[in-house]
Amino acid sequence: MYARTSFGKGGVAIASRKEVAELAGVSEATVSRVLNGVGPMKEETRQRVMEAAKKLNYVPSALARNFATSRSGNIGVVLPYVPKVHMFSSFFFSEILSGIGSKARELGHDILLLFQTPGESMDYVRWFHAHKIDTCIILGAKDDPEELLALRRLAEEGLPFCLINQHFEGEPFSEVDADHVQGSYMAVRHLIEQGYRRIAFMNGPLTYSNSRDRLQGCEKALAEAGLVLEEELIFSGNFSRSSGITAASELMKVIDQVDAVFAANDRMAIGLMQGLRDLGLSEERFPAMFGYDNSDASQVTTPELSSVKVPFYEMGEIAVAEVLKRLEQGASASGEPFRIMLPTELVIRASSQNLRL
Amino acid sequence: MYARTSFGKGGVAIASRKEVAELAGVSEATVSRVLNGVGPMKEETRQRVMEAAKKLNYVPSALARNFATSRSGNIGVVLPYVPKVHMFSSFFFSEILSGIGSKARELGHDILLLFQTPGESMDYVRWFHAHKIDTCIILGAKDDPEELLALRRLAEEGLPFCLINQHFEGEPFSEVDADHVQGSYMAVRHLIEQGYRRIAFMNGPLTYSNSRDRLQGCEKALAEAGLVLEEELIFSGNFSRSSGITAASELMKVIDQVDAVFAANDRMAIGLMQGLRDLGLSEERFPAMFGYDNSDASQVTTPELSSVKVPFYEMGEIAVAEVLKRLEQGASASGEPFRIMLPTELVIRASSQNLRL
Repeated sequence: MYARTSFGKGGVAIASRKEVAELAGVSEATVSRVLNGVGPMKEETRQRVMEAAKKLNYVPSALARNFATSRSGNIGVVLPYVPKVHMFSSFFFSEILSGIGSKARELGHDILLLFQTPGESMDYVRWFHAHKIDTCIILGAKDDPEELLALRRLAEEGLPFCLINQHFEGEPFSEVDADHVQGSYMAVRHLIEQGYRRIAFMNGPLTYSNSRDRLQGCEKALAEAGLVLEEELIFSGNFSRSSGITAASELMKVIDQVDAVFAANDRMAIGLMQGLRDLGLSEERFPAMFGYDNSDASQVTTPELSSVKVPFYEMGEIAVAEVLKRLEQGASASGEPFRIMLPTELVIRASSQNLRL
Repeated sequence: MYARTSFGKGGVAIASRKEVAELAGVSEATVSRVLNGVGPMKEETRQRVMEAAKKLNYVPSALARNFATSRSGNIGVVLPYVPKVHMFSSFFFSEILSGIGSKARELGHDILLLFQTPGESMDYVRWFHAHKIDTCIILGAKDDPEELLALRRLAEEGLPFCLINQHFEGEPFSEVDADHVQGSYMAVRHLIEQGYRRIAFMNGPLTYSNSRDRLQGCEKALAEAGLVLEEELIFSGNFSRSSGITAASELMKVIDQVDAVFAANDRMAIGLMQGLRDLGLSEERFPAMFGYDNSDASQVTTPELSSVKVPFYEMGEIAVAEVLKRLEQGASASGEPFRIMLPTELVIRASSQNLRL
């Protein structure tokens, strides 16, 4: 169909894909693969095709690519709006993005970062229709009605996408998640095994399924030991260190009733420790502390912070591999959602060990 | 020129921009702006245009976009190859990328992440010709002949790009940099003012101009105090914590000759401290330590780490604003390089203060 199409910007005729293939001594399919950046290819072959294309004035543009496959070669990665956007500095986002980037590069795709804007409806479908992305990975999705509508529309159109670290109960969305119920259960059980009974819990916002998962795991471990999560020992923050520092004042009021604290991420645990220190509590009087994420920071605090290791990097890699697999399988397969759940593990350090045992 | 062009995938006729503009009740220019995602626009207007385009089967595709302006609306961000790619977890990359992302979102552009591949020539120009990007920001560039050739080609073609945190002496490249000579000079002068005389220096690879800048600043401060940087007190690493841990064994051999250590980033400083601790050196016998970057980690170590604050976030924001400004000014202006140099500042914490003073 487009073998002899001759149009271009400013009316300059451009050569056909067939002519480029002949000059480069490769198949037309190879020319397409080079121009689309799809799949692994020899650098030498790529160079030969590019040189032939150049010689023949065949610009491997979005125009040509669009005619060949309607693909951009880009994986969209949707990032949430966070008011003060030092987002990539969070261990969660930086590790997932590293995994996504690594696998995308390996498979010959580029990453288009798409930032959500507050007050703007999340029209993910538009990015597909505009051929900016072929497939899409969504990070930090919230369980709210607007988000749900946007995701349902993607699913209805059969567009290949997946969520990372967020589950929508009863919805046919593909997801790569970690078992936060299990991780939280293990962390709290460890604290109980260390002889701690009065366990406080600092959680993130409940609009995230992973926060609800942590609450569930925490309560399960307590219940098995005949304990309950006391209302006044529940604290909440927004996963930032400063929310931990703020919560420390609240924690300080009940510090005599608390043996141990389980925090939903390391940053909040570190903020709590800093806050307690700032309020004059000496390290020896600190409750036992257990963080979550096993971020780099957990290894440089004093005491070193016990934490739940979540395979964020691997989750990013798997998400890319899976969405590209669906893309290759075509529209028929993309309607069948997958749900991949990876296990978490405990990393025990000084902060949670009971020296009196 | 393209007002009545009627072709499309599979031969389906698509409506003209003019028809979409008439139905939406906006100008053709507005239709273009919506389709190109260029500049700020009202969500309501965007919706109206998108609905009209949908009704008329006018897909706002790369095809249409290409005809309208040849622009993708994407800013390319080139990231270096790092063998174990937890790249976004480094404070340097994560902060710069946060700044880039924040400003790009504000100005209505998306970010295309482009990963360098080892052994593959860096053909930046190709991404422009393929209309994947309109402009380009390069992070972590090295001063090697291949990189230099690739950058010269970009400059020769008058394509708008800039480097962050890397300077090529005598080359007409636009750059956003921080004053690392000044930062290093101030850090070492502070150590000298604290009464330290025997100062060790752990630097990063000298293929980075910012490593050479640090060496220069360090030597300048020492020279002013009548001191020299002793050969056996120079250590080198690759900016990773593990390279700091490795260097600790070397440092341990000369520990009695060392009053203070200046490290080219916080990660290496933290690795040195961990390594010394692992080798059995008690905290009281630690040399004074000064890091660089003022990363989050510098605030959670014991002792807290003094550091040089570099405005990475702002550097990312400025780079985006400047390359987009050049893009709007057109080819004539993009040939004139800019060099923006931001100041650094010291953040003094416990690790560098001499309690005996």
